[in-house]
Amino acid sequence: MFLVHNLSGSLLPELEEQGAMRRNDYYIPVSCEEKAADLGNTKDGGDSKYDSIPLSSLKSDEAASGPKQGPTFQDGQRRVDYVLTYHVQKPQSVRRKTSHFGDYRILRILRRSLSMMKGRDMPPPKEDPEVAAHKHRLDYHEDDKRFRQTEFEDNLREMGLELEKDEGNKIPGIGFLKIHAPWNVLCREAEFMKLKMPTKKVYEVKQGSNVVERINLFIRKVTAPLHPKVEPNRAQNVKHLSHPFSREKQHLFDLSDRESFFDSKTRASIVYEVLKRTRCTKAKYTMGITSLLGNGVYTAAYPLHDVGILPHILSIPMQSQALCDQATLIVSLLVLQGDVDGMGPEANDRKILYEEWASYSVFYKYQPIGLIRKYFGEKIGLYFAWLGVYTQMLIPASIVGAIVFLYGCATVDNDIPSMEICDPRNNITMCPLCDRACSYWELKTACGTARASHLFDNPATVFFSIFMALWAAMFMEHWKRRQMRLNYIWDLTGFEEEEDHHRTEYEIQVMQKTLKKQDMSPKDKKVKLTCTDRAPAYMMGLFTMLFMVGVTFAVVFGVILYRISIRAALHMSSNPTARSNIRATVKGTAAVINLVIIIIMDEIYGALARWLTLLEVPKTDKSFEERLIIKTFVLKFANAFSPIVYLAFFRGRMVGRPGDYVYVIGSYRMEECAHAGCLMELCIQLCITMLGKQLIQNNLFEIAIPKIKKLIRRRKSDMDSQQQEDYNMTLQRHEKDHFLGPFVGLSPEYMEMIIQFGMVTLFVASFPLAPLFALLNNIIEIRLDAKKFVTEVRRPIAARAKDIGIWYNLLRGLSKVAVIVNAFVISFTSDFIPRLVYQYMYSPDGSMHGFVNHTMSYFNVSDFQPGTAPLQPMHLGYEVQICRYKDYRETPWSNTPYDLSKEFWAILACRLAFVVVFQNVVMLMSDFVDWLIPDIPKDISLQIHKEKILMVELFMKEEEGKKLLRDNHANQSPLQPRSRPASHTPSN
Amino acid sequence: MFLVHNLSGSLLPELEEQGAMRRNDYYIPVSCEEKAADLGNTKDGGDSKYDSIPLSSLKSDEAASGPKQGPTFQDGQRRVDYVLTYHVQKPQSVRRKTSHFGDYRILRILRRSLSMMKGRDMPPPKEDPEVAAHKHRLDYHEDDKRFRQTEFEDNLREMGLELEKDEGNKIPGIGFLKIHAPWNVLCREAEFMKLKMPTKKVYEVKQGSNVVERINLFIRKVTAPLHPKVEPNRAQNVKHLSHPFSREKQHLFDLSDRESFFDSKTRASIVYEVLKRTRCTKAKYTMGITSLLGNGVYTAAYPLHDVGILPHILSIPMQSQALCDQATLIVSLLVLQGDVDGMGPEANDRKILYEEWASYSVFYKYQPIGLIRKYFGEKIGLYFAWLGVYTQMLIPASIVGAIVFLYGCATVDNDIPSMEICDPRNNITMCPLCDRACSYWELKTACGTARASHLFDNPATVFFSIFMALWAAMFMEHWKRRQMRLNYIWDLTGFEEEEDHHRTEYEIQVMQKTLKKQDMSPKDKKVKLTCTDRAPAYMMGLFTMLFMVGVTFAVVFGVILYRISIRAALHMSSNPTARSNIRATVKGTAAVINLVIIIIMDEIYGALARWLTLLEVPKTDKSFEERLIIKTFVLKFANAFSPIVYLAFFRGRMVGRPGDYVYVIGSYRMEECAHAGCLMELCIQLCITMLGKQLIQNNLFEIAIPKIKKLIRRRKSDMDSQQQEDYNMTLQRHEKDHFLGPFVGLSPEYMEMIIQFGMVTLFVASFPLAPLFALLNNIIEIRLDAKKFVTEVRRPIAARAKDIGIWYNLLRGLSKVAVIVNAFVISFTSDFIPRLVYQYMYSPDGSMHGFVNHTMSYFNVSDFQPGTAPLQPMHLGYEVQICRYKDYRETPWSNTPYDLSKEFWAILACRLAFVVVFQNVVMLMSDFVDWLIPDIPKDISLQIHKEKILMVELFMKEEEGKKLLRDNHANQSPLQPRSRPASHTPSN
Repeated sequence: MFLVHNLSGSLLPELEEQGAMRRNDYYIPVSCEEKAADLGNTKDGGDSKYDSIPLSSLKSDEAASGPKQGPTFQDGQRRVDYVLTYHVQKPQSVRRKTSHFGDYRILRILRRSLSMMKGRDMPPPKEDPEVAAHKHRLDYHEDDKRFRQTEFEDNLREMGLELEKDEGNKIPGIGFLKIHAPWNVLCREAEFMKLKMPTKKVYEVKQGSNVVERINLFIRKVTAPLHPKVEPNRAQNVKHLSHPFSREKQHLFDLSDRESFFDSKTRASIVYEVLKRTRCTKAKYTMGITSLLGNGVYTAAYPLHDVGILPHILSIPMQSQALCDQATLIVSLLVLQGDVDGMGPEANDRKILYEEWASYSVFYKYQPIGLIRKYFGEKIGLYFAWLGVYTQMLIPASIVGAIVFLYGCATVDNDIPSMEICDPRNNITMCPLCDRACSYWELKTACGTARASHLFDNPATVFFSIFMALWAAMFMEHWKRRQMRLNYIWDLTGFEEEEDHHRTEYEIQVMQKTLKKQDMSPKDKKVKLTCTDRAPAYMMGLFTMLFMVGVTFAVVFGVILYRISIRAALHMSSNPTARSNIRATVKGTAAVINLVIIIIMDEIYGALARWLTLLEVPKTDKSFEERLIIKTFVLKFANAFSPIVYLAFFRGRMVGRPGDYVYVIGSYRMEECAHAGCLMELCIQLCITMLGKQLIQNNLFEIAIPKIKKLIRRRKSDMDSQQQEDYNMTLQRHEKDHFLGPFVGLSPEYMEMIIQFGMVTLFVASFPLAPLFALLNNIIEIRLDAKKFVTEVRRPIAARAKDIGIWYNLLRGLSKVAVIVNAFVISFTSDFIPRLVYQYMYSPDGSMHGFVNHTMSYFNVSDFQPGTAPLQPMHLGYEVQICRYKDYRETPWSNTPYDLSKEFWAILACRLAFVVVFQNVVMLMSDFVDWLIPDIPKDISLQIHKEKILMVELFMKEEEGKKLLRDNHANQSPLQPRSRPASHTPSN
Repeated sequence: MFLVHNLSGSLLPELEEQGAMRRNDYYIPVSCEEKAADLGNTKDGGDSKYDSIPLSSLKSDEAASGPKQGPTFQDGQRRVDYVLTYHVQKPQSVRRKTSHFGDYRILRILRRSLSMMKGRDMPPPKEDPEVAAHKHRLDYHEDDKRFRQTEFEDNLREMGLELEKDEGNKIPGIGFLKIHAPWNVLCREAEFMKLKMPTKKVYEVKQGSNVVERINLFIRKVTAPLHPKVEPNRAQNVKHLSHPFSREKQHLFDLSDRESFFDSKTRASIVYEVLKRTRCTKAKYTMGITSLLGNGVYTAAYPLHDVGILPHILSIPMQSQALCDQATLIVSLLVLQGDVDGMGPEANDRKILYEEWASYSVFYKYQPIGLIRKYFGEKIGLYFAWLGVYTQMLIPASIVGAIVFLYGCATVDNDIPSMEICDPRNNITMCPLCDRACSYWELKTACGTARASHLFDNPATVFFSIFMALWAAMFMEHWKRRQMRLNYIWDLTGFEEEEDHHRTEYEIQVMQKTLKKQDMSPKDKKVKLTCTDRAPAYMMGLFTMLFMVGVTFAVVFGVILYRISIRAALHMSSNPTARSNIRATVKGTAAVINLVIIIIMDEIYGALARWLTLLEVPKTDKSFEERLIIKTFVLKFANAFSPIVYLAFFRGRMVGRPGDYVYVIGSYRMEECAHAGCLMELCIQLCITMLGKQLIQNNLFEIAIPKIKKLIRRRKSDMDSQQQEDYNMTLQRHEKDHFLGPFVGLSPEYMEMIIQFGMVTLFVASFPLAPLFALLNNIIEIRLDAKKFVTEVRRPIAARAKDIGIWYNLLRGLSKVAVIVNAFVISFTSDFIPRLVYQYMYSPDGSMHGFVNHTMSYFNVSDFQPGTAPLQPMHLGYEVQICRYKDYRETPWSNTPYDLSKEFWAILACRLAFVVVFQNVVMLMSDFVDWLIPDIPKDISLQIHKEKILMVELFMKEEEGKKLLRDNHANQSPLQPRSRPASHTPSN
């Protein structure tokens, strides 16, 4: 053990210690520690470390029946429910001081052994004055931390928790405080938390009528291969009645197996609850666990994962050579035995999850939501349930989207407008696309674009928009019902979300404010942060947000300028191939640039939003999260959608007209759309953004980068993979988990999905394949997230949650905005309305023939502004008198040449009428769907009702039993046990 | 007593019995009954009546401390918590049979006295075979009822309730079953119902920071005279921590005064809960209380009001002359004493409510919501709280509305368009308003209408519409917060609404279906009503609804035809005064006819909706109510708003143009609007509907008709008012309450308010005074409803409710619809958009000069269709070549004469653009308000959090106490009581 200490000065523990580690496996640090102490060679600050000695002296009051599941204390009995880590003093700095401390150390050890002999651990007594005097030499900060740790741990013990320390065993510089909640604490806290636990009472869950039951059975049979192979997911017709746990009602619950009555997730959350409540009060200001973590008194807090995932973990190399003595060997073997038991091939939840959920090979299966909830808690369970529902709902949407796209493909040859454009007989001369450099061009050269546009701009698109609006409403409803069902199954029906504890930053701010106030007026009043305190941060936040949104717009504008200038440059070039590929080149490069900028800005905005939220010093974690989410959402949303919004609604609208163009920054003319509307370009942009964002963010950021990081680390550590693996083998669970990344919350996952949901619903009118792309992405996403949660991050604390909170509101908001955006896309971006208007108001024969001609106005080339006329007017081989441009304006020979024509106003009115009608009809339909589908599934509401009745019945039976007993006791007459009405029992 | 029975054959109890009554006051029926039985002169069917004997034998196991509040059993101790009434056999029919029954009766009485001697009441034994044989002669139905009653009452006793019967005492033909819930039942049920009760633990409610506190105090001082003089409404800085009642946690609660621990409302609802759970199972099919009530086994079920309202109730005439013997006299005096105590001048809740709430003299005060809730329960409390919030919110709305109206009045002289219309120099000749009979007219004759229109059609109206949309959003938010606050104050935070019990009609239907099914296939399976069973009713409902909405439209159309024809007729008449008053006459009579039809149809629709809902056989009362509400809402809404919608959006739009008018039913031309838009007429219609509806429905239906009914009844009863009053005095509480109307639910009250809310928000753009009218109405409405609840109906069962349920959704729906309706009113009904467009697009100098001319097109009189030209073309004194009409059409001399002009399309586009912008901006703002204002007030959420912490602290302290005790017991060492960490307590 001391070997380790001597070596552990480096920051890279894997680097130097593996040799030592290998010999120290399954070694009980306590006994070694004692030896080391005797040798006067330990480090300082191990004050509280010795607390583990009395704790680990095998206590027998805990019901010890069979081997425990999961990691345990050194006694192999008490399960580790939670782990806190902290920094321990570096041995280097210690070694200098050890000589001075030798005597005191021995004193202390003596005292310890004394208390150990008594068989119970006393809280570490106040420092002896001499020791305290010596300690002054130590870093004040470290001392303070140690002091707080000690107090906190004492308080924890006071609350009934049992602790064990494990300092710098294999990972130098890191101490582990293992926490175990004994049965009575579990019961007490479960009662306080009003945890609903299953009672002994079982009742049958009716599947409804005979027909429904049969249909359900059939569906179940058909979908059987889609269900993951997880026990509790099988058909179950019985459910345990559940009731908030109460020690007074213990008889209701099946407590025969105390070990498994509270599962590991519940145990961890109970311990966390106690931790949150425990505070250090002795120092200048009180601190809870969040503050302690924030101030570095503890470095991390996490519950432990279930032991192994992979079956070959069993093959643990027996390398415990450097044993201290025979006794420890035996104990360590026992511990090892315990570990092996836990790691055995019998399925633990984590292993099942790894195999049946976090694997790409089961991508087609349902998720084992019940098990996810059992292992990770309700909050994460809800996320994956939501993701599952969303992905499932994307299937019909992508099928319909694909059909709509195929319809476009199939009808492209029958589309009269594009036929007219492509027809060389319609010899239409168009006005030049740029000043001077460009010349007149013939409409038939736009044939390809026109045909492509039809793929996305056809009547089926309108239907699809309506479909997707209703789809969104259905999705929301479906989710609400699913959520309600899960609430029922998970016994959350009576649960109310609680206000969270205060954040560290908030407490520190408050403390500072208190100190300041006390300086001025020493009135002891509770201080809190008011709006005035936060005002600068709010202002800062607001302005930064506005600035960043401005930056986003600027970026979009920059890309526009890029496009304009590149196009002008290419037009001027003499290379004919370059000129022919102008459009494609410009579009492609611009979209890619946009994409790259979006992805870069996304990362920046994420960090920025976090920083801004930190500045605001929100009170609770929940509030922090909400503020962060809103900021991130606004920024990321603006970032992702501003180029798309520009393409959809602004491009080609502020162009002006020939002879009176709109110029930006000097002499750049604003972009025009291709002849058949901007829908095509919008579509390309959407496609590239969606695909690119998903590919890069998912695959590059989430898969490749962690792999690369690992590779680099391994390269650095000079170990080959076998060595690395061996080293990993030797680590205990809490040490292994320490190397995993911390759990950072679900917000990034949700955010990604919300942006995707925006892509799918907002501009679906222009890109019917969006749901398909989203579906493909999500199938990967689910398993990717699953892998991450199961293998790559520390186990999160199981948080109870009834719903997905703010995300639901964001989704709802998006699906509302989607209706109006789609209405505008259809009426303004696509040619749908002009076509309809032409067909029913202007067409001579009610067909679309002549539509292309109708959409274009005439321009007399003599009206060009000086210096803007094309340099090569004869480019087409004939002299042009009148050229055409796409707009509804009066002819040059009318009274008001180039004014907006009556057709323009009529079409505008129709467009707007369509928006009004579409928006209101679709909203009405959505609300109708919302109203029609009850939020609580009928069977669930029936079952909740039934449960309540059963509960009362159960209690009534109990009452009667009690009364009978009492009656029999009172008047030993066994004659009239039932005819005696209840009204006669004494009412006192 | 026998006198009563001999007389009581009549249906009008008040009529014949007052003489007897007067002598029978405070008379104990039981003892008399016995005497009567001895005389062989009682009625039959009194089987169960005798149950009251053993019950009324003063039991002493109930803690009898001091006089009880409120009505009690005959023993003067046990409070009457609930009353069931039932029909008793008519004495006439009985008298014929009494002689046969004499002997059996004596036998039974003997048995009874025996059981009475034992001091406990046995359930009535099964009928003796002989008696049963005799009974066969009785009406089977009555027998069945009696049988069920007996069983039900036995079951109630089994559940622990105590019963007392009071048959035909003063009101012949009616039996009363008084129910008392003893302490242990109350406790048990309170535990089952998870009633939150105040604990002993008291904590201080923080008012926030010092400044906030001071402001609150100031506001409280200023508004002090507005607060009702009710004790609990005073400033309270402490609140009892509340916790779901549990007998195991009895020590938490202050049970020193058991009588008042559960208040009368809670006691009643507990009894009701037991009643709901109790079922008769012995007969062919099981029946709950709802079925029993529905089948007439019991006729009514109600809790009792607090005793007296008026102080002079004390002066009870002592008229107990016909006493049976000395002993009964003493007992009856005791009873009287008890009653007098209850009726004493010390304030009971009802009296306070009567004085401080149900009185017009306190109209300006806040309502004592806490007391209302205490007396009537949460559901009714919420209604009045909502009504209060609504009325309060109407105050700013009506102030702003009045200002907007005054602005209109003030600016009417500066309005250029109406000045232009009134200017005689603008000699504009208008086309005739009807065919043949009417002639050309000059625009200046429309001067008055134009000026009046400006009152309601000015830019302030647009502002007011936006204001009202935001007002509606604020109102909803404000209500949500208020509701949340009330939930907190009323300890409903953890309460979940329960599925109701089945309705009678549903159970009967199910039973019939079961019987039918069992005939066919005797498989015993649970039957329920499926969609197929209900399909006919649904279809029926749907078609009737559609038909009735059709009828409503037909009525509106009828009124239109009335207007058109009357106008044409008047135009043709030669009476010049009639002709000059045409417009006013037509408008006035049409609006009144509309109003009368609306009020009549309202009543019809109410009945119809109820009938349709009954046909659907909903399962639970809640579902019944919801279905009924939706139906009633649709019908009443269509009824109230279809004339208004017609006026706002259709009138004057389907007119056609001169030379090409639209005709309906032969030769009637559709109505045109007055020159300055239809807004004026819309306004008149709204004004008449609102005022008329409120005046007639409120004052006539709710005040006058009950008064008249009372008068008629009094007339019939041949008593002068003094006699009547005296008779009333002699009645006991449960008898008095029997004469009160049954409580019919809150739906009608809510419905009235919702329709009013519709009037206030939907067309507020056209009638800014609507909020003011609504406010005035509501001030009366509150007190009217209060009076009704306090004095005129039986006390309702206190229902717990967290929110106002479906009404909130309807309000929300209305405020959403209001946005779009107002957008349309502003843009299409008012002249706002045309004015704007003229000012910024067409006006030569940017002013409104020339607007009137611009809005009118030219018509060449030679283009009249044959036979439609005016008969008197020279009516104006000159020949007319060109007349003008209000529309945007091409001139007769253009290429496309009379086609819609470019201006028309431009203005239409602008109108629609305004709709889109207005709708979305206002909706966005509403959502923003919704988002900005948190649903839970901050102080409440903090307090809820604090309560939870306090609760856990309380429990933890308790735990520690327990542990200390245990520790001290275990190891009699008093040395280390605290240093012993919790982890050492045995965990088993």
